[in-house]
Amino acid sequence: MKAVAVRSGETEPTLLDVPKPTPDDGEALVRTLRVGIDGTDHEVISGSHGGYPAGADHQILGHEAVGVVADATTTKFEEGDLVVPTVRRPPASGSNVYFDRDEPDMAPAGDYVERGIAGAHGYMSEYFTTPERYLVPVPDDAAAYGFLIEPISNSEKAIEHAFAARSAFQWAPESAFVLGNGPLGLLTLAILQQDRGVYDTFERIYCLGRRDRPDPTIDIIEQLGATYVDSRKTPLSEMPAAHEPIDLVYEATGYAKHAFGSIDALAPNGVAALLGIPEDWAFEVDGGRLHREMVLENKTLLGSVNSHVHHFESAKESLATFPEWFVNDLITGVYPPEEAFRAFETGDDVIKTVVEFDTL
Amino acid sequence: MKAVAVRSGETEPTLLDVPKPTPDDGEALVRTLRVGIDGTDHEVISGSHGGYPAGADHQILGHEAVGVVADATTTKFEEGDLVVPTVRRPPASGSNVYFDRDEPDMAPAGDYVERGIAGAHGYMSEYFTTPERYLVPVPDDAAAYGFLIEPISNSEKAIEHAFAARSAFQWAPESAFVLGNGPLGLLTLAILQQDRGVYDTFERIYCLGRRDRPDPTIDIIEQLGATYVDSRKTPLSEMPAAHEPIDLVYEATGYAKHAFGSIDALAPNGVAALLGIPEDWAFEVDGGRLHREMVLENKTLLGSVNSHVHHFESAKESLATFPEWFVNDLITGVYPPEEAFRAFETGDDVIKTVVEFDTL
Repeated sequence: MKAVAVRSGETEPTLLDVPKPTPDDGEALVRTLRVGIDGTDHEVISGSHGGYPAGADHQILGHEAVGVVADATTTKFEEGDLVVPTVRRPPASGSNVYFDRDEPDMAPAGDYVERGIAGAHGYMSEYFTTPERYLVPVPDDAAAYGFLIEPISNSEKAIEHAFAARSAFQWAPESAFVLGNGPLGLLTLAILQQDRGVYDTFERIYCLGRRDRPDPTIDIIEQLGATYVDSRKTPLSEMPAAHEPIDLVYEATGYAKHAFGSIDALAPNGVAALLGIPEDWAFEVDGGRLHREMVLENKTLLGSVNSHVHHFESAKESLATFPEWFVNDLITGVYPPEEAFRAFETGDDVIKTVVEFDTL
Repeated sequence: MKAVAVRSGETEPTLLDVPKPTPDDGEALVRTLRVGIDGTDHEVISGSHGGYPAGADHQILGHEAVGVVADATTTKFEEGDLVVPTVRRPPASGSNVYFDRDEPDMAPAGDYVERGIAGAHGYMSEYFTTPERYLVPVPDDAAAYGFLIEPISNSEKAIEHAFAARSAFQWAPESAFVLGNGPLGLLTLAILQQDRGVYDTFERIYCLGRRDRPDPTIDIIEQLGATYVDSRKTPLSEMPAAHEPIDLVYEATGYAKHAFGSIDALAPNGVAALLGIPEDWAFEVDGGRLHREMVLENKTLLGSVNSHVHHFESAKESLATFPEWFVNDLITGVYPPEEAFRAFETGDDVIKTVVEFDTL
């Protein structure tokens, strides 16, 4: 079967012909429809993040997928069910308490592998297999955009943790500030704009970028009803003066200074959720003032990575509320596996791309 | 009546003769028994923290008090009831949403005054008055040490917020690390050593200091069953290698580098509660690595200040579990108001001091 992979020593995706996998009992064989590409995939092919499966000379890419059950074996699924797979799996040493609790997103380094990222093949192939517990059923109308459920789920988790961190008092956030206008930032804006659940509390939403107009991400930001903030004109620390102090900051840039700058952007009692994964970088901070500010104004910084099935379920509900124009505008390229290399091309007109293996 | 105050332009406590206050309806007149002294009081007399009541040429000190209701007026109390007052009061502009919610500890700067610290007289006088809602009833056996309920309540709040921040997943912390062997650090060790409520989860507790043996705080740390960690030999970042990664870090030093060093001391999914109030200090941090570490290992840093009645109630329960030797050893000096200046003297043999106005 066709698979898009990166080979050892290379930094470009390649189309390979690999054996079609055979599901064990308790696993489903899934026919892949679409696989989304995000910044992590670019890091994987460049070799700066993740790592190959043990003993393999290539890694099949892709961790954002939607597919159809082709062989249900002994699972609860039926053939034809639309499903989205989660990303983390137990390491070679076997399962552990985090998987036993269905919270693999809380497993520390070494206690998991990640399909398509680190230590396990991904979903960018005509078929994949996985145990039942790692598959989330989704409705048929999610066939086209269900691959977005995985990235959305990462934000659902981060926001859930942020609200939990503020649950010991009466918190009524009104303002949110998404740092980063990449696909994850834009998806998070759409999440925060919903009138569903905790998201309904946000009255004013901002998004940080460093692009000049005209720009398709700025168009999406504004069409979602959010306010674009140009970081070249308004540094994080000036956000309260330029707009307002922010109750919830969501960081998806990987720009390490934003982790610290968020403290200044936050309103009293606010929380910043950090999701970016920066490289090493040493720099000076106004450490005494920032520490004091966190204490005297009850501010919180929290890191969040990955997600588990519960967050996929919430992501499924969020996706169902997204306007049609938004997902259409977000996806700027759909490519067959033979042209997967095009899905990895970047540019100011590229937001999110997808490799399509099949349709429902 | 006698009052211990700091006068404008001075940096030493002075015994003043001031008018005995008259309670309004809804206020109780309280006969002061004991008032504890902490680092904040030292900052207030040095002028580095807080500020005088509007129009006053002196500030009566003290925010950690225990007293007896002398005139209950229309309050729910009866004369003879033992009570502990909270610290924050509405500002001159009047009450606000934080006081309406009984969460004045979450009020931002400008939305409160603090008795004995900023903008309001404290409790270091023979009598004080305060509205009923700011008085917590305590049992008669708390007459000697009830002034500890206020500092304990600050830790109760910080720990409550820390657990809340980890409530979106199954967190079972076993290790705690208290940074600072001052009175608040030692009180927090005693809180964490309880077999009550969430505190029961901690199996191994450490306390950071920079003292040589023999030292009375190290004696207390070890008698509480905790492990003393000398920061001159074991920097925070080496804590995981020297002992173990830490689930809950509690910072009460005001040393700004510890806010950032805590990230390295934490175990995956851990939380550091910051309570110290440092001066301005700019320094270099390994910002990219720390940001990445917070994200990939789901770590949280949270600031916490002050406390509200609910935390005083919990503090009352904690105090009741403290061993007699602990409170005896913690209090190294009890002075009459005429010798209050001695209660402000520092030294390696001084842990916590108290000014005693009266006994039950």
